[in-house]
Amino acid sequence: MLELLSEHACFGGVQRFYRHAAQAIGLPMRFSVFIPGSAKDTARKSPALFYLAGLTCTEETFMIKGGAQRVAAEEGLILITPDTSPRGANIAGESDAWDFGAGAGFYVDATVAPWSKHYRMYSYILELRALLEQELPIDPQRTGIFGHSMGGHGALVLALRNPGLFRSVSAFAPIAAPSQCPWGKKAFTGYLGSDASSWQQYDASALMAAMQGHAVPFPDGILIDQGLADKFLPDQLFPDVFEAACRNAGQPLALRRHAGYDHGYYFISTFVEDHLRFHARNLRSGT
Amino acid sequence: MLELLSEHACFGGVQRFYRHAAQAIGLPMRFSVFIPGSAKDTARKSPALFYLAGLTCTEETFMIKGGAQRVAAEEGLILITPDTSPRGANIAGESDAWDFGAGAGFYVDATVAPWSKHYRMYSYILELRALLEQELPIDPQRTGIFGHSMGGHGALVLALRNPGLFRSVSAFAPIAAPSQCPWGKKAFTGYLGSDASSWQQYDASALMAAMQGHAVPFPDGILIDQGLADKFLPDQLFPDVFEAACRNAGQPLALRRHAGYDHGYYFISTFVEDHLRFHARNLRSGT
Repeated sequence: MLELLSEHACFGGVQRFYRHAAQAIGLPMRFSVFIPGSAKDTARKSPALFYLAGLTCTEETFMIKGGAQRVAAEEGLILITPDTSPRGANIAGESDAWDFGAGAGFYVDATVAPWSKHYRMYSYILELRALLEQELPIDPQRTGIFGHSMGGHGALVLALRNPGLFRSVSAFAPIAAPSQCPWGKKAFTGYLGSDASSWQQYDASALMAAMQGHAVPFPDGILIDQGLADKFLPDQLFPDVFEAACRNAGQPLALRRHAGYDHGYYFISTFVEDHLRFHARNLRSGT
Repeated sequence: MLELLSEHACFGGVQRFYRHAAQAIGLPMRFSVFIPGSAKDTARKSPALFYLAGLTCTEETFMIKGGAQRVAAEEGLILITPDTSPRGANIAGESDAWDFGAGAGFYVDATVAPWSKHYRMYSYILELRALLEQELPIDPQRTGIFGHSMGGHGALVLALRNPGLFRSVSAFAPIAAPSQCPWGKKAFTGYLGSDASSWQQYDASALMAAMQGHAVPFPDGILIDQGLADKFLPDQLFPDVFEAACRNAGQPLALRRHAGYDHGYYFISTFVEDHLRFHARNLRSGT
């Protein structure tokens, strides 16, 4: 059951905000959807693209700041953005830090109490995907995923582990080797415990390293954009580690480094058109 | 003296946020500027476009939500967005209402104490325009203005009263006859007093009505976009009053009514490209 919270006409389509009872989370969750005008005819299924946002963001951030709806309308893409964590779990300390807890679910299923009860964002994204296949005119064979920073990490991990569900993947400034950076170590220790072997399933570089000889079959490979003036690049993001893992695995990767660009939405909005065109092309090719 | 607060690469240009000591206001004011890559060569002057935002907004709102930088980069337009009121005037009750005081300067020069000391946004916009002509590579002969809601009102009033300074004008859902609507009556009474004759200089429809036979010489006329699902349309905006005044004055006006669109930035971002192309065309023609 989806509860429609608001809707707004936008580029000939409609921008919607929903709330629903999320089973994986055990709490109500919000998400947003942009449905292009071409998808109003619900008899014809459309390709869909999940966007996972970064630390401190909500289901609204990308839809407000990303400037993606124009191209989504042109390409006939449905856009979906979940929230970045459970809300209202009422865990002590949940909102004390901006990089752990509320707004920082890291797209993992927590195994450490008290987080393990509600903080199950990995399963939640898969639940939402399955739910929206039923509720929206989405072609399940043509769903892609992308994201930013923490959400870029989430998109890479979800795509690498579920290539049958997500047929196309890209990221802006992803946390590409979270087991090796302060953000990731803090989150994984808190949500998964100190045994780093349990972290590997949520580390895109580790997953790619384990795929030696088994490159995922995205037609155009993986697209990553990274700003070179991004203050988090030296210590938190490590795209070069992921790049090396892709090279070893024979996985095509376009890692574009952009002089002068930082970590924010002025960077994302500049290159979002390229990402939507990339996904639309991949999803049309339908391998 | 401009103090650069932050800058971000964006669509090949740069998004900047500044603070400066505003003489008309008597307090520091913030504004934002987008400078397209084509204006980096400061020897060549570029056309510029002021955007005035609506109630509750700041100098950041349009730059985050408007999605205008892409087209501004293509057209070589410098974009400038001031804040919507003085900040930190410390007047009792200044922040009690969202439609009066902080965030709601209404682009008038207040004459009623205590507002008259700092709330002088009409003069401030002209001051900022003159200042930025010195500080940025702006062609003073090619400056336009547009805005949304309260800012649409401000843009129309500033353009109609200063056709030599602003050569092109448009608006999204402007408060087009503020003397006749609750928002305008409240603001004008508070800032200007209860004598409605003092309001006319800040009422675009009244100004246009007084221009009988003296239509302003914008080459393509005036462009206004209005959503028909805008909840403020029936009681606050009155574009039809402005339309009638333009008709009587012989002023060309394209008032486009859009079924389904509301008052927010999903509406603005949908049509912002049309506005930037409109201004770029007007400013190129250089009458």
